[in-house]
Amino acid sequence: MIEREGQVTADRPLFTVEPWCVREPELRLDRLAQTESVFALSNGHVGMRGNLDEGEPHGMPGTYLNSFYEQRPLPHAETAYGYPEQGQTVINVTNGKVIRLLVDDEPFDVRYGRVHHHERVLDMRAGTLTRQVEWTSPADKTVKITSVRMVSLTQRAVAAICYEVEPVGDSVRIVAQSELVANEALPGGTKDPRASAILESPLVGEEHVANGTKVLLLHRTRQSGLRMAAGMSHDIDGPESTTIDTESSPDVGRLTVATRLEPGQKLRIVKYIAYGWSSQRSRPALHDQVVGALAGARRTGWDGLLREQQEFLDEFWEGADVEVEGDAEIQQAVRFSLFHVLQAGARAERRMIPAKGLTGPGYDGHAFWDTETFVLPVLTYTFPGAAADALAWRHMTLPLACERAAQLGLEGATFPWRTIRGQECSGYWPAGTAAFHVNADISDAVLRYLDATQDEQFEREIGLDILVHTARLWRSLGHHDVDGVFRIDGVTGPDEYSAVVDNNVYTNLMARRNLQAAAEMAMRHPDAADRLGVDAEEAASWRDAAASMLIPYDERLGVHPQSESFTNHARWDFAATKPDHYPLLLHYPYFDLYRKQVVKQADLVLAMHLCGDMFTDEQKARNFAYYEGLTVRDSSLSAQTQAVVAAEVGQLELAHDYLGETALVDLHDLNRNTRDGLHIAAMAGAWSGLVAGFGGMRAGDGRLRFAPRLPGGISRLAFRMLYRGNRVKVTVTSESARYELMDGPGLKLWHHGEPFTLGDEPVELPIEPIPPQPPLTQPAGREPAPRRIDPHGR
Amino acid sequence: MIEREGQVTADRPLFTVEPWCVREPELRLDRLAQTESVFALSNGHVGMRGNLDEGEPHGMPGTYLNSFYEQRPLPHAETAYGYPEQGQTVINVTNGKVIRLLVDDEPFDVRYGRVHHHERVLDMRAGTLTRQVEWTSPADKTVKITSVRMVSLTQRAVAAICYEVEPVGDSVRIVAQSELVANEALPGGTKDPRASAILESPLVGEEHVANGTKVLLLHRTRQSGLRMAAGMSHDIDGPESTTIDTESSPDVGRLTVATRLEPGQKLRIVKYIAYGWSSQRSRPALHDQVVGALAGARRTGWDGLLREQQEFLDEFWEGADVEVEGDAEIQQAVRFSLFHVLQAGARAERRMIPAKGLTGPGYDGHAFWDTETFVLPVLTYTFPGAAADALAWRHMTLPLACERAAQLGLEGATFPWRTIRGQECSGYWPAGTAAFHVNADISDAVLRYLDATQDEQFEREIGLDILVHTARLWRSLGHHDVDGVFRIDGVTGPDEYSAVVDNNVYTNLMARRNLQAAAEMAMRHPDAADRLGVDAEEAASWRDAAASMLIPYDERLGVHPQSESFTNHARWDFAATKPDHYPLLLHYPYFDLYRKQVVKQADLVLAMHLCGDMFTDEQKARNFAYYEGLTVRDSSLSAQTQAVVAAEVGQLELAHDYLGETALVDLHDLNRNTRDGLHIAAMAGAWSGLVAGFGGMRAGDGRLRFAPRLPGGISRLAFRMLYRGNRVKVTVTSESARYELMDGPGLKLWHHGEPFTLGDEPVELPIEPIPPQPPLTQPAGREPAPRRIDPHGR
Repeated sequence: MIEREGQVTADRPLFTVEPWCVREPELRLDRLAQTESVFALSNGHVGMRGNLDEGEPHGMPGTYLNSFYEQRPLPHAETAYGYPEQGQTVINVTNGKVIRLLVDDEPFDVRYGRVHHHERVLDMRAGTLTRQVEWTSPADKTVKITSVRMVSLTQRAVAAICYEVEPVGDSVRIVAQSELVANEALPGGTKDPRASAILESPLVGEEHVANGTKVLLLHRTRQSGLRMAAGMSHDIDGPESTTIDTESSPDVGRLTVATRLEPGQKLRIVKYIAYGWSSQRSRPALHDQVVGALAGARRTGWDGLLREQQEFLDEFWEGADVEVEGDAEIQQAVRFSLFHVLQAGARAERRMIPAKGLTGPGYDGHAFWDTETFVLPVLTYTFPGAAADALAWRHMTLPLACERAAQLGLEGATFPWRTIRGQECSGYWPAGTAAFHVNADISDAVLRYLDATQDEQFEREIGLDILVHTARLWRSLGHHDVDGVFRIDGVTGPDEYSAVVDNNVYTNLMARRNLQAAAEMAMRHPDAADRLGVDAEEAASWRDAAASMLIPYDERLGVHPQSESFTNHARWDFAATKPDHYPLLLHYPYFDLYRKQVVKQADLVLAMHLCGDMFTDEQKARNFAYYEGLTVRDSSLSAQTQAVVAAEVGQLELAHDYLGETALVDLHDLNRNTRDGLHIAAMAGAWSGLVAGFGGMRAGDGRLRFAPRLPGGISRLAFRMLYRGNRVKVTVTSESARYELMDGPGLKLWHHGEPFTLGDEPVELPIEPIPPQPPLTQPAGREPAPRRIDPHGR
Repeated sequence: MIEREGQVTADRPLFTVEPWCVREPELRLDRLAQTESVFALSNGHVGMRGNLDEGEPHGMPGTYLNSFYEQRPLPHAETAYGYPEQGQTVINVTNGKVIRLLVDDEPFDVRYGRVHHHERVLDMRAGTLTRQVEWTSPADKTVKITSVRMVSLTQRAVAAICYEVEPVGDSVRIVAQSELVANEALPGGTKDPRASAILESPLVGEEHVANGTKVLLLHRTRQSGLRMAAGMSHDIDGPESTTIDTESSPDVGRLTVATRLEPGQKLRIVKYIAYGWSSQRSRPALHDQVVGALAGARRTGWDGLLREQQEFLDEFWEGADVEVEGDAEIQQAVRFSLFHVLQAGARAERRMIPAKGLTGPGYDGHAFWDTETFVLPVLTYTFPGAAADALAWRHMTLPLACERAAQLGLEGATFPWRTIRGQECSGYWPAGTAAFHVNADISDAVLRYLDATQDEQFEREIGLDILVHTARLWRSLGHHDVDGVFRIDGVTGPDEYSAVVDNNVYTNLMARRNLQAAAEMAMRHPDAADRLGVDAEEAASWRDAAASMLIPYDERLGVHPQSESFTNHARWDFAATKPDHYPLLLHYPYFDLYRKQVVKQADLVLAMHLCGDMFTDEQKARNFAYYEGLTVRDSSLSAQTQAVVAAEVGQLELAHDYLGETALVDLHDLNRNTRDGLHIAAMAGAWSGLVAGFGGMRAGDGRLRFAPRLPGGISRLAFRMLYRGNRVKVTVTSESARYELMDGPGLKLWHHGEPFTLGDEPVELPIEPIPPQPPLTQPAGREPAPRRIDPHGR
């Protein structure tokens, strides 16, 4: 029943395809690290990888607290002015998940004895991970174990586990050890620069207490000056003879339950776990905070926590669910993706949403631009409070961003390319500091949130400040040439296979929007703008720069070069590139990638999605076809944008293929690095591919527009979204779209360019078929996997 | 008599101005590190900084063997494909210079007691460093010490010191300790990325022997696998009662001489020092090699060594001397420069010529492109064998350069940006690997050497191989665009304030010459070319690429952009740049420097010097004026090229100013880092500024041309050079130039564009005066220091 490393298992799917669950019907030790990421539970504040209760075997143990990190030096072979000297790395904090079990003195370990049944189920409506095992020990004693684990979405400091064990056949002696373990040994590193730096024993013990069924461990980090507390407390239900003992040492807290179970008897342990951390609060304060959280959780009780969790998720799904008929894998994947996007952001509360959420140590636990560009659009329209919180976090780091801009000789603010707490942590400036578009991406997320919510307080207190400081950045970063054209030279756009280029179209278009919007917002809030020192001349200079912005265009080829001169460069020799030489960055020098036409990820195509009104339909079609031939998708961020724009230009089957790639990135481990954590931004693309792609949703300036059109493999698509106090449901079939107001005052909408008003009555509008489009070509071997069209809808 | 750190000494010159010497009339402890570099002695194989005999005080102790280095890891905050992982650093080897002295038990140390007289003189005709001291100990005993030091130009493993001490007044007890010291403690590092990494205790003792007056220490390095031996042996002349004792331990060898000197008596120690190193030879072999070198030196004797040295230098100066009347500082500086260029290359013999020669640990002891571009021109026309040797060293590393090209996905060979033994050691690829022009610079040095010497064996055995492999590199590095233009995208030119640009004019012109010359040379040597796999099609493809090479030109401004799009970029805000913010790279991020019009060092202007026939006179004048306004000369490599081209465009006074800057870089410590070693390439510019600048010398295709014209401050210039078996002397005054054949069969020459034939009879030709030129502007505060015109010629 268990697959061991090296066995041939490729042809058996890891998970069953079900609409609301991800089920692993048998334990696959060869995929343990991947399943730990997939089964990770998080509320955005506390995250736990889906490690087995007994701790071992594991792919990578992991428990994370949002923004709890250690500093480490960033070494440079040749240093230079402005290089960050300190990095930040998320650390594996005290593990509260561990419950070890001895069956007649034999440790329960799936690698020994016989596993008759092993099933894990992530339930996306209940918000729980359930595990059921039936196991016979080497000494021939059989037990059934059931554990249900949750990280509470309603009590942000709290996680809980309900662990049950019962004998099958003979009576057994049982010892269960429920633990807190700090400074766990982690598996060795990897040469892949994208994987995380691993820090050994990052926690220094400060206090440990054992009391009744409660244990607390307090630790601090060595360099970053952070303090954390982890606590556990228990409800235990077993035969009368059951004994309980607790103990603690600096790095281990342990509750030991010993009993004998006769057939029909059961031991049930409910373990409440709570975490707290702070850079400022004292040890007693943190101690009390965690003890308080434990008391609150225990009062709520296991059933109460389950109920709260379910209610929270019911409310979320009511406004966010996406139904897909015809492609059962996508149905499962879009819910799985929405669930993890929610888990990453729900209770982050003015801390960041990292690229991997709190599911693994990949990318050192850093947040990048993809949060604002790919994750926040989903949250903005489904769970807007989390989008506001994430942007409020950026706003909190604005002083650091202003310092960084000053250090670089620029005005305003420049946000870091990668960070945990706001300081720039990028060790390679051409793909870090130079990627200034992150600033426009943050501004764009602010504008999107404001457009969707009309949250005036946010605009006044947060939005204006961000817009003004980023507009100042753009104004100082660019210059007018002698012809009066505004140029932004020497920056890096989204595509990481080009760097330090002049007039990247994406960057310039997004900067233009940033400048224009800042000028408009300053006019709307003259007093607040005045306090920021914005006068009429400064706003005028932003408008002027925006109006004069250079957008290069190659007349000869009739396409937009991704950046100035891009289309003059040699094309990458795709025919000579072996399939195992992808991702290219691991097999070719940056030098060679940068100077050739080869695209890691949508860049000009992303500009066509986010700034679609700046391109004609014909330009979109020509550009899309041109960049399809160059884009290798070595970044997981690419497929969703290609899905959205493919759908817009009528390449519906291709859009469906790309949707599959972004939606299944982790369920199918397409990039072979799900072990390091989930690709939250790529998964957010499951929603975008369906809603912005096949739903054709675009919004801005109060105009919510749809242009729905389905590919052959999807017979029905229904999605919900929130916009300016309205909850709208859109149901699309191949012939028509039905618009329904679930909530709110009603609004004007657009259907394929035609406006209509949606009130209490649903509106159903026809969808004109389009002629089949000419096939497009991708680099050899880089075509997306075609979606199988399963007539039974499985 | 001694200046201590912190005292005000700025207004007293450090050295006297004399035509053939550099004399320090009093010891300046505050300038010790600078004078150690200035007074360094070397023959290109062994180098010794001008440390005081007694070892202390010192700025930086230093003894170097060409190519004797240690490896160290190159750390990268974010690593990537193709980054070098190992660096190479020159190490301070066993110090053989040390002779300590005790005067009545009181150690001779200039920091204690009283120094009545302290003079050091570098004699550029004798090739010696002489020191004379009169010192009274704290216990009131006075001695006179004279030491003369040399590194032999005729016996490449050998250095020698003649050390004499005599009492002044009372008799004194004297103990002299002549030592070999390995693993000396070095002063702490610096944050300046240009300074060397310092390795502590790099040598592991393998053997030590003391025998008679002879001591040997053998060591090896830990990582690089090199073995070295240092030995000393002595002739001692003193009163009869003198006792001699020797001892050795792994890191110290010591000969102790004890005596009593009555007034009028003298102790004289001649110390012979020899070094050997190898990556392959055994310990006994190395041992014997050094013992043999010592025996040879001792047989020659001190006077014999002095005589050989003098004869070697007489022969050199006969063909290389430059006479300058009207500017005594320049007269001294050009001889000082030629002396150090000779010292760097004379006996390097198929090892590299590092940027600092063997005078200090700066730049980790690496060789760069500046050897071929700035140093070899001087050697080619004055001491051509050393130029051939340096290029033969490059040829020896060709297999490594081919490996590197293959690693980067390129054809042919790419030589390292910085190295000691041939492996790329650059830790920052935009200013390292991407600076492919180094390959054309090496080819150009080959062509220059061949043009000057017609050395057919070198062409066949070395030149062709280098030309073919670099032509292959250029062919694979560039590509034809759809208009059939050959582009070289994404490379870095000489100017390090731009990087990873398209179609750098310098690079493209030099690559063109490389491609053309390779095709021609392959035709001249069909058999050898055939063995290298060059067929007619390949040669044709080189000619075609050369003929189609893109040379961007800005029609609007009427200037050549340094690289494509350069003139569209914003100009650096020089007015807002504080004087103490130079060099800019220590105060501004690369990101900002790269995207603006600001030039660290001549780039387009260097192209106008080296590829002058590709520009019209008007273009030269316009381009020069344009780049004068942008060039900050944060590199010491710049001024000489500006001097040469300023002279060509008639800006003679400006040329004189730049000449002063390059010639006095180390005598005046203009860059405040002479402590780390001399700027050999900048000093070579003293010769180039005079010969190529005011002499207007250009050569190529067998045509040796002159266009002499002097600035107001130089009344007479005479220089000698070797060309195709002729030794030519050119004497220039403001009215005329006299050409004289000192040696050889005679040749055709050009004077201001007019050909004439030089045979046994001198030819004197008039120089037309030119009208005064319009003044040019440099970035604010970056004007070169004006040369004072001293009517007395001091």
